[in-house]
Amino acid sequence: MMNPHLYCVIMAGGSGTRFWPASRRDRPKQFLPISGRLPMIAETQARLEGLVPIERVLVVTAESQVDLVLQAIPTLPRKNVLAEPAARNTAPCIGFAAFETLRRDREAIQVVLPSDHVIAPVEEFQSTIEDGVAEAQCGETLVTFGIRPDHPATGYGYIEVGPRTCHHGGSEVFSVQAFVEKPSRKEAEGFLSSGNFLWNSGMFVWKAKAIENALREHLPEIPVAFERYSSGAPLDEVYSNLPALPIDTGVMERASNVRVLPIEYSWSDVGSWAALPELHPADESGNHPVLSEGGLLVTEDSRGCLAYAEEDEVIALIGVENLIVVRAGNATLVCPRNRAQDVRRIVDRLEREGKHFL
Amino acid sequence: MMNPHLYCVIMAGGSGTRFWPASRRDRPKQFLPISGRLPMIAETQARLEGLVPIERVLVVTAESQVDLVLQAIPTLPRKNVLAEPAARNTAPCIGFAAFETLRRDREAIQVVLPSDHVIAPVEEFQSTIEDGVAEAQCGETLVTFGIRPDHPATGYGYIEVGPRTCHHGGSEVFSVQAFVEKPSRKEAEGFLSSGNFLWNSGMFVWKAKAIENALREHLPEIPVAFERYSSGAPLDEVYSNLPALPIDTGVMERASNVRVLPIEYSWSDVGSWAALPELHPADESGNHPVLSEGGLLVTEDSRGCLAYAEEDEVIALIGVENLIVVRAGNATLVCPRNRAQDVRRIVDRLEREGKHFL
Repeated sequence: MMNPHLYCVIMAGGSGTRFWPASRRDRPKQFLPISGRLPMIAETQARLEGLVPIERVLVVTAESQVDLVLQAIPTLPRKNVLAEPAARNTAPCIGFAAFETLRRDREAIQVVLPSDHVIAPVEEFQSTIEDGVAEAQCGETLVTFGIRPDHPATGYGYIEVGPRTCHHGGSEVFSVQAFVEKPSRKEAEGFLSSGNFLWNSGMFVWKAKAIENALREHLPEIPVAFERYSSGAPLDEVYSNLPALPIDTGVMERASNVRVLPIEYSWSDVGSWAALPELHPADESGNHPVLSEGGLLVTEDSRGCLAYAEEDEVIALIGVENLIVVRAGNATLVCPRNRAQDVRRIVDRLEREGKHFL
Repeated sequence: MMNPHLYCVIMAGGSGTRFWPASRRDRPKQFLPISGRLPMIAETQARLEGLVPIERVLVVTAESQVDLVLQAIPTLPRKNVLAEPAARNTAPCIGFAAFETLRRDREAIQVVLPSDHVIAPVEEFQSTIEDGVAEAQCGETLVTFGIRPDHPATGYGYIEVGPRTCHHGGSEVFSVQAFVEKPSRKEAEGFLSSGNFLWNSGMFVWKAKAIENALREHLPEIPVAFERYSSGAPLDEVYSNLPALPIDTGVMERASNVRVLPIEYSWSDVGSWAALPELHPADESGNHPVLSEGGLLVTEDSRGCLAYAEEDEVIALIGVENLIVVRAGNATLVCPRNRAQDVRRIVDRLEREGKHFL
């Protein structure tokens, strides 16, 4: 049975360049079918089905991306899209969502999710969310979810786990010792061997009232700004004065009522093209096609390549291995899978030499 | 001073697949800017400037490609485009051109050129053509041009040179011992070391009357067919009965009045993508961009790559070497430079799996 106070907030303000040329300034990663057949944001919403009805799903995004959101999730009511006049990182975004949710339901509980992660299976995801909801409801706590690391990743923030406080359903609940920003390789190896650190998934569950209280305590300018908005101040004026802060450092590190639920299911923030071969199984040729409608991959003597293309496009590979080949818009990218992180260097170059290709 | 009887026939009937995906069924290689900024056929015409005025340039092409010819050479009179209703190799094509040229000028001398070769410098090309014209005019001979081989190529036909017969301008003229089809590697090595074999360039000079006589002697069905056309028979009916034969085996091998002029300038039939890096110098990054208006190549740690793209396209390469990367139409090709000949295998696959990409 659905909890009638349960809301979901999907944060879709990202503007990453790591998926250039598929992702562009005006179409970031969350609007691309990178992880499956649907845009990532649509897959995020689909993952909530049976848990939160579409009427209680809010999406926070940039003003310029409202139409993209509505195209990606056609059933989403227009009034559930919260358009930020400026990008101010996650703390103001969460403040905006808390303000709007409380306006609709003073008893609301929020599941806050990034729009561009890959999670499976859905059943385990939903069951840990339900456990998180139980925890947030009983304890008035701010609940985070931590992924058990299987390698010393340096691209994620970590959560240092404190003592166990209780359990809900199949989930143990722990207090949080510390939030740690992206570590060095050496630190990450220490975290992995200690067994006491989890990757910070960026997903949260809390009562809207609880996060509002925490904001009021640690970043009071945010609730104050939305009160001004409520009294008639224009949103863009309100936003222009807000600090650009992540919720992790702005609130979670400072608050005393933070908890973490370790989660065991498959999770990826899909940080670069190099993450895609794991998400898309190889075809009979041993390559990984990520194609849209009407697309075709034709290969001769090629293995381990990721081929991404838009509708009605063919990619032909002869005698190559472990390459990333991306065709999107007016651009073509070719690089070895182990150089995917250097796409940002191409983006930097285009900033100077060919902005219109960004 | 221009010879008022000198005509040029550009043969543009080719439909090669070796430049897929840039070349397509409806846009073969000669209509692509592969060797320079202009389509190859336009560069072929430009190479005649000062030697043959556009009013005396005839282009023989497929009916479906008449518009492409006129787009590529906008100054060409429509009546100078001879549209073949069917592809019948070079002998009928040359018969058609001889028929049409003689209709205009009984004293015509023809320079017959493929539309898709690269030749430089223009001055040397024109001076050997003038020498060939002198030979054809004095001797009533069928003149071919042979390139001195610098490696044992197996992709060209060869001409075995006979005794020297005379000279014109800076050119020696030789009789021809034999025409040899594409040889094996071993044979080609023998040809190279003997010093007595030249590559068959596929370029000819002759009096229109001389080639008509030779056709009448060796392939009489061809002049007979064009006489029927002249008497009112429809061209497509006439063509459907013609043999599909190259002029080399159909006439040149059998005729006794064939001569060859060795030429020393730079010549290439540009047989595959692998030929392009030689024609397009490397940029400061060490890669070979072959881009149209508005195009851009951006590279990081990449060398020796050929990047071909259409207008307003960017190609980005990271950490790759000696690759061919082609973006054209709805298709992207990636292969090492030494695998370019295998593009035909992709084309074969598409014949079965994705004809609409051909």
